[in-house]
Amino acid sequence: MIQVVILGAGNVATHLYKAFQQSENIEVIQVYNHKPERLINFPETSTTTAISKLKEAHIYIFALKDDAILKMANIVPDFGSLYLHTSGGIGLDALSNFRNHGVFYPLQTFSAKREVDFAEIPMCLEANSDKNLQKTKELAAGISEKLFETDSGQRKALHASAVFVCNFTNYLYTIGADICQKHDLSFELLKPLIKETAAKIEELSPEEAQTGPAIRNDRGTIEGHLELLDKNQKNIYELLTASIYNLHGKKL
Amino acid sequence: MIQVVILGAGNVATHLYKAFQQSENIEVIQVYNHKPERLINFPETSTTTAISKLKEAHIYIFALKDDAILKMANIVPDFGSLYLHTSGGIGLDALSNFRNHGVFYPLQTFSAKREVDFAEIPMCLEANSDKNLQKTKELAAGISEKLFETDSGQRKALHASAVFVCNFTNYLYTIGADICQKHDLSFELLKPLIKETAAKIEELSPEEAQTGPAIRNDRGTIEGHLELLDKNQKNIYELLTASIYNLHGKKL
Repeated sequence: MIQVVILGAGNVATHLYKAFQQSENIEVIQVYNHKPERLINFPETSTTTAISKLKEAHIYIFALKDDAILKMANIVPDFGSLYLHTSGGIGLDALSNFRNHGVFYPLQTFSAKREVDFAEIPMCLEANSDKNLQKTKELAAGISEKLFETDSGQRKALHASAVFVCNFTNYLYTIGADICQKHDLSFELLKPLIKETAAKIEELSPEEAQTGPAIRNDRGTIEGHLELLDKNQKNIYELLTASIYNLHGKKL
Repeated sequence: MIQVVILGAGNVATHLYKAFQQSENIEVIQVYNHKPERLINFPETSTTTAISKLKEAHIYIFALKDDAILKMANIVPDFGSLYLHTSGGIGLDALSNFRNHGVFYPLQTFSAKREVDFAEIPMCLEANSDKNLQKTKELAAGISEKLFETDSGQRKALHASAVFVCNFTNYLYTIGADICQKHDLSFELLKPLIKETAAKIEELSPEEAQTGPAIRNDRGTIEGHLELLDKNQKNIYELLTASIYNLHGKKL
């Protein structure tokens, strides 16, 4: 049985906790958070708000925001255990205070209100030795079927990619919703399209899947759209249209 | 039985044809296309490349590109039937040559290689009279459960929204794939994230679902990402980051 202490009580910590609880060979023996109010999300487990009361465990997981990971790395004691963080944004060396350290990055977007199936989540793993990587893999295998070794440079690239395909994409949904609202249209109308756009890339590469007026620089349609956008939306529309035309238009 | 002639043999025409074939009260009696080679996709139905050989039908559907709709509207004879086009980009008046005319716009992205479930596709409908709208609705009800009346202004707004949530989103996927490829990472890694980002909006509004470094203008992470992007990707990253921060950051 792998004994784990989780540091943090936000979305990543909560979802990881639930996944560990369902695993047969992982036991979360404690959850730490500096604020007590979020610890009520872990009723079945011992919790603490004091670093001095951390239990000894095989693995400590820093499921915290980037700046909190860096800060906590200076105050958590080194019991000789394995110390992992869950961030896509910072390097392996963020935990180099600890003899045994690594990264345990689940490449997914987590919201408090939505359940996720960890089995499908790519776990991007790295550690400071083969032995520690092996332990990190064992932990990941307890919750996911998709394990990937990625170095800190690759993880940074993945994190940047994730900003495009998740954060920026969600912002484009926000613009779609805004245009609908301004024209007395339900955002429901766009949902099947959003779903299919994402589903398409299971079968087609994004390059193959590209459609729309930008490919052929269809000025009549494009000008018509620009007329009904606000200034910021117009800037985004023009930049992305030019980018798509530069990539695809020349091949027509 | 509603008898239909389809003008066009591209993705929209082909998918509509398949949906009509599965409907009990719709019969496609002919498919027209000016080039014969694409008509092999309609083996069970009479086809023609000559406008002069168009059969008489209850409804004619212009499932063509916008410029082809405008051109064909001048040469197809008016049999007194109902004439509909499938475009989000042009107005009802594109078919005003015909006494009875309307719009039959399926709000979805169609690719040759992917099957779609028409029952889930929002059908955006408009016509030049109540009677013609009623007929247009009857036709749409044969293939979809989601019928919406939208005027030409609303349809144009929907089309612009669709460019953001589909065409531009797909282009962001292309950037994600490009970054992965440059760092020796499989695009497979991003697919669960893409799927979840789209699935989230079934439960959360896009505004609620927004995550990422842009919200809090996390400069450390942002600068790290900018370093590994090419010039065009950098422009897009900066514009979208500023837009997200303007919308969300001020609320923090």
